[in-house]
Amino acid sequence: MEFKGRDIISIKDFSREEIDFVLKIAQAMEPVAAEGSDMLRGKILATLFFEPSTRTRLSFEAAMHKLGGSTIGFAEAEIASVKKGENIADTVRTVENYADVIAMRHPLEGAARLAAEFARVPIINGGSGAEEHPTQALLDLYTIMREKGKIDGLKIALVGDLRYGRTVHSLAYALSLYDIELYLVSPGSLKMRREVLRVIKEKIPVSERTNLEGIVSLVDVLYMTRIQKERFPDPAEYAKVRGSYKVDLNILREAKKDLIILHPLPRVDEIAAEVDNSSHARYFKQVWNGIVVRMALLALILDAVR
Amino acid sequence: MEFKGRDIISIKDFSREEIDFVLKIAQAMEPVAAEGSDMLRGKILATLFFEPSTRTRLSFEAAMHKLGGSTIGFAEAEIASVKKGENIADTVRTVENYADVIAMRHPLEGAARLAAEFARVPIINGGSGAEEHPTQALLDLYTIMREKGKIDGLKIALVGDLRYGRTVHSLAYALSLYDIELYLVSPGSLKMRREVLRVIKEKIPVSERTNLEGIVSLVDVLYMTRIQKERFPDPAEYAKVRGSYKVDLNILREAKKDLIILHPLPRVDEIAAEVDNSSHARYFKQVWNGIVVRMALLALILDAVR
Amino acid sequence: MEFKGRDIISIKDFSREEIDFVLKIAQAMEPVAAEGSDMLRGKILATLFFEPSTRTRLSFEAAMHKLGGSTIGFAEAEIASVKKGENIADTVRTVENYADVIAMRHPLEGAARLAAEFARVPIINGGSGAEEHPTQALLDLYTIMREKGKIDGLKIALVGDLRYGRTVHSLAYALSLYDIELYLVSPGSLKMRREVLRVIKEKIPVSERTNLEGIVSLVDVLYMTRIQKERFPDPAEYAKVRGSYKVDLNILREAKKDLIILHPLPRVDEIAAEVDNSSHARYFKQVWNGIVVRMALLALILDAVR
Repeated sequence: MEFKGRDIISIKDFSREEIDFVLKIAQAMEPVAAEGSDMLRGKILATLFFEPSTRTRLSFEAAMHKLGGSTIGFAEAEIASVKKGENIADTVRTVENYADVIAMRHPLEGAARLAAEFARVPIINGGSGAEEHPTQALLDLYTIMREKGKIDGLKIALVGDLRYGRTVHSLAYALSLYDIELYLVSPGSLKMRREVLRVIKEKIPVSERTNLEGIVSLVDVLYMTRIQKERFPDPAEYAKVRGSYKVDLNILREAKKDLIILHPLPRVDEIAAEVDNSSHARYFKQVWNGIVVRMALLALILDAVR
Repeated sequence: MEFKGRDIISIKDFSREEIDFVLKIAQAMEPVAAEGSDMLRGKILATLFFEPSTRTRLSFEAAMHKLGGSTIGFAEAEIASVKKGENIADTVRTVENYADVIAMRHPLEGAARLAAEFARVPIINGGSGAEEHPTQALLDLYTIMREKGKIDGLKIALVGDLRYGRTVHSLAYALSLYDIELYLVSPGSLKMRREVLRVIKEKIPVSERTNLEGIVSLVDVLYMTRIQKERFPDPAEYAKVRGSYKVDLNILREAKKDLIILHPLPRVDEIAAEVDNSSHARYFKQVWNGIVVRMALLALILDAVR
Repeated sequence: MEFKGRDIISIKDFSREEIDFVLKIAQAMEPVAAEGSDMLRGKILATLFFEPSTRTRLSFEAAMHKLGGSTIGFAEAEIASVKKGENIADTVRTVENYADVIAMRHPLEGAARLAAEFARVPIINGGSGAEEHPTQALLDLYTIMREKGKIDGLKIALVGDLRYGRTVHSLAYALSLYDIELYLVSPGSLKMRREVLRVIKEKIPVSERTNLEGIVSLVDVLYMTRIQKERFPDPAEYAKVRGSYKVDLNILREAKKDLIILHPLPRVDEIAAEVDNSSHARYFKQVWNGIVVRMALLALILDAVR
């Protein structure tokens, strides 16, 4: 399997074998993440965030530092040359001179793919439009693998905004490569996109619901997402949805003992604070897992591990 | 004395012995600051500045680099996930996965304390609300100690906005642990907060003035602060105060020969430019001292010195 | 030739011998840029960008990282203490305590010179006002030298906004130290500033044109610049100019076979995308050259090479 110099644009570009390989390397990175290393000493990561994302940006930067490399970049489009009217192609053909690898977030779908077509250095998609967030999907899978010991055979629910949330699209594609049962729980106006549904339904059993009831007791993994007020034209509609998708200790009484709850964060109030100390919560563990997964990708792409 | 893993939230959490110990380590850091070192190689400092402060942020980052460590972070709340409605508890439980120590500035009082309650990694308060700025107090004390050879026995004046300026609150608490005489000089509307006064008056002689006259000739240390226009509803009142608290060479003719003038910076016009080259000015020396004090704290907390 | 501790403020401060020396060191940096090094391990570069410039800032930061050093800084004045009313003199006297060298961009002419007068550490001007951008001029010269093997004897055209574009001012001064013929092509309202013209016309033959026709076939180097809409009170005037200064494959049919096209970037549409893959394009190569030139300057100033 060759990762050297590879672009990471879409989870759809990955085979199951490739995902499993990345997860294996990620696990090997756990002690490296704790100790630090010189694997990428002298290498530079550019983080080009045309859209702010503290979490993803800091995760990439921490991963690079833990491998002994350096980082440069910008955190929002306003301070980029974009302001002066520069297009993505020119930006990446410039920045590729400064860096050995580029992690990029952009509000437009297709932006990362376009960048990769012009860049000589590898591009890692840190989120583009509402469509793709491949490194998030990989860390989600890594978390499930680490916590459950496997992915095959699990019942997994994705809950919340399945229409605009980019993490659930990438995750759904990735999960469809495994032998799982998928439950999609969302309000009618925020249902999973058809183009995603079409693909994953050919591979795994998928059940769509508008209601969280009955799901919590059924599944092994509950993947919650943030429901944003802006998505609802009617505030009353938002209030109703918001209330009905909230996970708290009461609702968890019916859960399997070893249910794990994930969330890409930040959350607003989909998960009550009282759940944080329960045996189910894994959403902060996910954050750590994001570091080791990104370390694995950086080390693979820059040929420091094979 | 144990500093490993300790949060630095308030100067009120420090005993005199602890402060003296930090100042001793800071002095030992002087050659390290000039040479650079590998003491914290592989360690990461996150600077979370929910409120901009170039000075404090760059000082922490330079201190970390001089110890061989790396930094990640953000410089203003606008580019943080705060924008998406995330609370402090979630932010620190995220960032603690990326970093070995967090330096944080926040506009709200109590923010750093709250962060420390949730974080597994140590939190250093880089300024919270109008209340606390413990690392500034430590560097102020270090400057006095280095320049005067002692703190005990000195006459010290704090001048300007003693109500809203967070540095003077932390500094007043710290000074009250020493055997000094304190003069507080401020306009009536910007007097030292009562809760501070109550505590320090039990320990040291404190004299409140509204006028700078007679003070300059009396003291060993003149600590000036910035008076911000926004604090005055009446512009005429501001203009009057602004003029009467300005230190220039003329007013310094009555000063002791070895008077030192400090200022947390930035200044507006509390200190005339002509004073910069006088034998009294130490405010730019303070900036350097901020580096070694923060190096000492980082090295102690991360167990690189004891 | 002594570069240790030297400020880099204006290209006018350089003799031809000094420029040639910097270009020679830059070339020696090519393998170092590819490999990384420890030349400046323990040293800190502060990038103070009071005006955003992703390109120049990232170039300086990448250069410093490739030499093994660290960087701190800010990317726009809004997040600097400037906001609190601090002047440049105080800012540099603060930041010199954090860093071994300062690269600075400022909207006002003379800002870098002022900073250098107050700072104890060397200042590198990363662009000040519309007047100076010495490191851009050096990388432009380096590109010409590398691509043509010489500078003397060439015919060079500067095209576009010669009035407000700071790079062309610095470049024109630098080129006047060589034995070249200079063609200045601009709309009447954007002609080269008189004070520049006066100086360079004493040294080299200069020909001013308002039309690109006839020039392309004549020259060895075509240096294009961005024409900004904001410079034109009349949109119709802008539209006309914009069209007539655009370089495409059609216009290049009359070009010398070994003509090279440079551009400081970002471009808007002065150069058609179809030109990017032609044998003439060197504007992305320039970006790489910016790294090695800035590495040379940093290493010289901080006495890591001589």
